[in-house]
Amino acid sequence: MQNYNLNERIPAKGYAVAHKDDSFKPFSFTRHPVGENDILIEIAYAGICHSDIHSARSEWREGIYPMVPGHEIAGRVVAIGSKVSKFKVGDLAGVGCMVNSCGECEACKKSQEQFCQRGQTVFTYDCKDCFHGDEPTYGGYSNNIVVSEKFAIKVPDGAPLEKVAPLLCAGITTYSPLKFSKIKTGSKVGVAGFGGLGMMAVKYAIKMGAEVSVFARNENKKVDAKTMGVKNFYTTLNGVDECFDLIISTIPTPYDPMDYIQLLKYGGELAIVGLPPRDVSPDINITSLVFNAGKKVYGSLIGGIKETQEMLDFSLKHEIYPETEIIRADQINEAYDKLTSGRAKFRYVIDMNTL
Amino acid sequence: MQNYNLNERIPAKGYAVAHKDDSFKPFSFTRHPVGENDILIEIAYAGICHSDIHSARSEWREGIYPMVPGHEIAGRVVAIGSKVSKFKVGDLAGVGCMVNSCGECEACKKSQEQFCQRGQTVFTYDCKDCFHGDEPTYGGYSNNIVVSEKFAIKVPDGAPLEKVAPLLCAGITTYSPLKFSKIKTGSKVGVAGFGGLGMMAVKYAIKMGAEVSVFARNENKKVDAKTMGVKNFYTTLNGVDECFDLIISTIPTPYDPMDYIQLLKYGGELAIVGLPPRDVSPDINITSLVFNAGKKVYGSLIGGIKETQEMLDFSLKHEIYPETEIIRADQINEAYDKLTSGRAKFRYVIDMNTL
Repeated sequence: MQNYNLNERIPAKGYAVAHKDDSFKPFSFTRHPVGENDILIEIAYAGICHSDIHSARSEWREGIYPMVPGHEIAGRVVAIGSKVSKFKVGDLAGVGCMVNSCGECEACKKSQEQFCQRGQTVFTYDCKDCFHGDEPTYGGYSNNIVVSEKFAIKVPDGAPLEKVAPLLCAGITTYSPLKFSKIKTGSKVGVAGFGGLGMMAVKYAIKMGAEVSVFARNENKKVDAKTMGVKNFYTTLNGVDECFDLIISTIPTPYDPMDYIQLLKYGGELAIVGLPPRDVSPDINITSLVFNAGKKVYGSLIGGIKETQEMLDFSLKHEIYPETEIIRADQINEAYDKLTSGRAKFRYVIDMNTL
Repeated sequence: MQNYNLNERIPAKGYAVAHKDDSFKPFSFTRHPVGENDILIEIAYAGICHSDIHSARSEWREGIYPMVPGHEIAGRVVAIGSKVSKFKVGDLAGVGCMVNSCGECEACKKSQEQFCQRGQTVFTYDCKDCFHGDEPTYGGYSNNIVVSEKFAIKVPDGAPLEKVAPLLCAGITTYSPLKFSKIKTGSKVGVAGFGGLGMMAVKYAIKMGAEVSVFARNENKKVDAKTMGVKNFYTTLNGVDECFDLIISTIPTPYDPMDYIQLLKYGGELAIVGLPPRDVSPDINITSLVFNAGKKVYGSLIGGIKETQEMLDFSLKHEIYPETEIIRADQINEAYDKLTSGRAKFRYVIDMNTL
């Protein structure tokens, strides 16, 4: 363990892109000192999320550079501020998509910090931290992170950290809409898109007692799906003659949401968690919605800190993990290429010991 | 009362357009004989609904001509089939947007006949009646109608028929989403668009105990709204600092649904019941939905027969009626002009004694 002076800026190193067309290169920087409510985590693993790619390449909006992505972070607490009570040095901890928020508005009080009504949600990277002089935030492709204890997730000793890391985005993103739509034993759930997010949605839905069907582009993963307990595996929407309480769309490419809305029961819901780049993001026409009345559509965006903890506890208890492939820090560029070209089979997780 | 031979086609007269650019002219036709489960109603009043105009002018899809619109019908039963049990001759009765459906599918069994899963919902006009050799249906701008008793609404003696008629579309269209979204005492409801539908939505929501705000284009009806018990009356979306459990959009012209979605609470719902013509009907982008996560959108399309009866009973009990203006049958063209140009203040109801 390194020695840190908690009252000074914390030296850190990681991998960054300098602009949207850049490749990842080693990058040294500092993080703000460990405040009285902060903890310092030495990062063991950081997952690579598809949204890291969209952000690094400024596909949703213009990014803040240099950018160190990464919001699927797991590691060990190596220092704590004077008022920290939730963690002690040596504990395992995780960090997901957020590192701070106002804590005082109605949304924050309900632990929906991602919707902070003062607009003070501080995202883990590619964001200005209004609580620290608007300094840019740097994510998990690095050796450490300083975070408010409220925004760190407790991870029990012995948990597989390389699996915990990707749960903090891929897990909560799919767990949250299942809870929001009150899925229970006997619910009929459809999962559209069967990549990393889709697989997690399937695992949670099955564990919650739902009858699950998958909509995928091809039959590659049909056997995997059936092994997981999926009832129907569709590669076309023609001839689907079941209706769903909930369909979760994890599709990251252009498609017509009405195709799925039409498959809902009266009162059923389409939850959208996958996001194509904005310039090809599909629309839903309100006339079509009215002629498919009584079917609800909503977007879902990660989940709050309380629910993230609940998701992690549920995942560990039921051993629900993503399929992961561990890579070295110098393989990030290669991983991005594979993810972009659809050649990635599993969730890439960077082993930070290789930094 | 006229004498009818129930086993032969029933002579009828009304007002029709011969094509989408035509004006209304007197029209004689016949209706199918009164079957064993049918009733024959002599129509006293028929409301003019904005969707009559869209249909007559083929603005949603190519219409079936000659067309006799009208799906807000109230009158008196003058003959019944041999197996009719719900009505006797002399009863008052109403007919809304539908006159038949399969009765056997899951949706019909739940009295959501407008969503008949066999596609056999027979709409009151501008539709082919698959239960009667695909003959075209003719609506309420006429002196009588033959309808399956299941699709007729019971109206108690003494009810104001000229007010009952428009309830059968404008009433159910606004009552249904309030029930679907489980509005109760203390709910915060916004009503966007303050025409005939909007006013009904406000009246029902207030009677259900909700705190109601209105979004209107101008201040013309602000005093009316305040008299009805509306809390806030907005003519601009700037500076609105309340959040809603439900917003019902009755807006029939182009607008941006996201403006209203942004005003919802987490878990709040936007119900769309107003429909601009299809070529200017707005879209909702799914990326915007995700970044306004946890806010649901759905369309609502009239309501089932059981709920229509419930709405009518509720309306009569609480004396919730639309503002109406009675016109003669030869004033339909004039009424359409006023409705289209926004000069109509109230719901037009045709007095069929003037035919």
